[in-house]
Amino acid sequence: MADTALELRSLIKKSGELELTLRKVPVPEPGPDQVLVRIEATPINPSDLGLLLGPADMGTAKISGSGEGAVVTARVPAASLASLAGRLDQAMTVGNEGSGVVVKAGSSAEAQELKGKTVSMVGGSMYAQYRLINAKDCQPLPAGTTPTEAASWFVNPLTALGMTETMKREGHKALVHTAAASNLGQMLNKICLKDGIGLVNVVRSPEQAKLLRGIGARFVCDSTAPTFMDDLTQALVETGATIAFDAIGGGKLASQILTCMEAAINKSAAGFSRYGSSVHKQVYLYGNLNLGPTELARNYGTAWGVGGWLLTPFLQKIGRAGQTPLRQRVVNELKTTFASHYTKVISLPEVLQLSNIAVYTRRATGEKFLINPHKSS
Amino acid sequence: MADTALELRSLIKKSGELELTLRKVPVPEPGPDQVLVRIEATPINPSDLGLLLGPADMGTAKISGSGEGAVVTARVPAASLASLAGRLDQAMTVGNEGSGVVVKAGSSAEAQELKGKTVSMVGGSMYAQYRLINAKDCQPLPAGTTPTEAASWFVNPLTALGMTETMKREGHKALVHTAAASNLGQMLNKICLKDGIGLVNVVRSPEQAKLLRGIGARFVCDSTAPTFMDDLTQALVETGATIAFDAIGGGKLASQILTCMEAAINKSAAGFSRYGSSVHKQVYLYGNLNLGPTELARNYGTAWGVGGWLLTPFLQKIGRAGQTPLRQRVVNELKTTFASHYTKVISLPEVLQLSNIAVYTRRATGEKFLINPHKSS
Repeated sequence: MADTALELRSLIKKSGELELTLRKVPVPEPGPDQVLVRIEATPINPSDLGLLLGPADMGTAKISGSGEGAVVTARVPAASLASLAGRLDQAMTVGNEGSGVVVKAGSSAEAQELKGKTVSMVGGSMYAQYRLINAKDCQPLPAGTTPTEAASWFVNPLTALGMTETMKREGHKALVHTAAASNLGQMLNKICLKDGIGLVNVVRSPEQAKLLRGIGARFVCDSTAPTFMDDLTQALVETGATIAFDAIGGGKLASQILTCMEAAINKSAAGFSRYGSSVHKQVYLYGNLNLGPTELARNYGTAWGVGGWLLTPFLQKIGRAGQTPLRQRVVNELKTTFASHYTKVISLPEVLQLSNIAVYTRRATGEKFLINPHKSS
Repeated sequence: MADTALELRSLIKKSGELELTLRKVPVPEPGPDQVLVRIEATPINPSDLGLLLGPADMGTAKISGSGEGAVVTARVPAASLASLAGRLDQAMTVGNEGSGVVVKAGSSAEAQELKGKTVSMVGGSMYAQYRLINAKDCQPLPAGTTPTEAASWFVNPLTALGMTETMKREGHKALVHTAAASNLGQMLNKICLKDGIGLVNVVRSPEQAKLLRGIGARFVCDSTAPTFMDDLTQALVETGATIAFDAIGGGKLASQILTCMEAAINKSAAGFSRYGSSVHKQVYLYGNLNLGPTELARNYGTAWGVGGWLLTPFLQKIGRAGQTPLRQRVVNELKTTFASHYTKVISLPEVLQLSNIAVYTRRATGEKFLINPHKSS
């Protein structure tokens, strides 16, 4: 094993410049309770892009150098710098989750136990060739599971399970999901079909609608159809969904969902309330496929909320005891419910190529890149 | 006493027409536990306009007839009719709160006790000359309190107290209020000064800023000033406010408040979080001074929420036991903390005059009409 290995870094300078580079860093030695994992698969999730690129305008991206020595730069709008104070001028490591093989282990029994095993990990710094990690934070995998199968074991599966858990904990009986043909959306369908939960899928094309119907989705509404608002209202009447998880973020969709929820509730309401229905309607925004402002028409009374939703605070709220059955379910169903599909496997230097950046920042439904940090470019 | 008396009705027809009229209705006889109140003062609050006018376009308003026989009509946009299903083709009574004198009382001791007394009421149907009400729902007033002084005893005072209560119950230590020079805003300042609560007042003109400073407000930010965002951030740093109550509703103000809250939190934050601060930032929209869409820039991480806030659900949540000390405080401080000021006293027929409608629908800060249902036009 070499003494040094590649690691991706994202730097935003006080001057308003994003700089992406690969660094050669020393390969660390595990402490007694630690292991060293050779990372073989780590996905580029939409949730990685915030740290990787920040609010940089990638239309201004330039590359200099090549291969492992490539440097990508792009402009960060001055107005965004205030909110980035905490990371300015620090070269951040990136990559939420990944999978690989334990190649060195510390002296403790727990660490030694993992030697040679394939494990999954979460916790950042995965866009690198090696990751030092506490043995207790490794997720051992069932025999026969490959790093590629296990790379996306955490963010999407736990997010999908987090949605149905949040639905239950906040007293709703069915849910709406947007950008529903995504990897995550397909997982959510499998969960809801298996668990008997009403799910209204909102998609942005007839092709996406067809894809979801093909995997058994019952309620699919195409937001590009002229009958969208009626279709959605009808699906909400049939499911009784009063909570939504929206990956789009910007534009009018969150507001349209609230409008249709209110209409669906009023269809079965006994009397008029001057302030709209008293049933609480909630939309959580968990993604930013549309970076424009969220526009709320507010034509749905006063019993509504819109807010950010993120996996990490949700997991903190339910605690490790709440998480364990969810993690175990994911690992048990990695080849079925929680299977991920990738459109391209790239090396670390390829993460910096502008042609790839253009694709993985497009956040297109169904488009998903996997990094193999040991792939030769 | 005459057999019949005037009562205002608001009708929205399935055809999409709003119709405001005065009806002559029989004056009812109190049952054993009821009293009949001769209403002498009832305010036109922004919260009354929703039921009075619905989403009608008052630019299309026409009047026919005159005096008590006047009929006002206006167009209701077809797109709004679905959300009004529960009230269509029903002539609704209007008016949330009011005050008057008990002129008839039922046989029970509780009802007889109130005979001749000045009382305050809440519960609708106040835009009328008489109101039948259960004796236990009347709020007796301290000696020397007039109906004019007591007319606005509920909506604004309980809303202002509801804001500081919500702030405490949701774990915040200071709050932001917009349209802060309003009657309600001035009350809130008096409450916060008295109770030692940090309050950031957002206003829309230098005159309003001056008015608030004149009554002792410490943090006043003028949204029309070029330094608004910096001023607001600084006030948020000094107060630690992480919850806001916004009367504007539409436009960018709610989002600007969240942006400044996040900047204020990050000014004192130790490290960078890729998802923004983990401190929950909340804006409750309780008014609609700007009827346009609410535009959320979402440049404040994921720990945020925007939602409707309304007095009635809040009161239901805290229950009668939680309300009693708040109601008692209002009654005790009606001539000081909770004093209301009116720009005009009008009769019931004058409520229907287009020139008055133009003023009371303008929702201008400081402009407030009081109805005296027994005033002769």
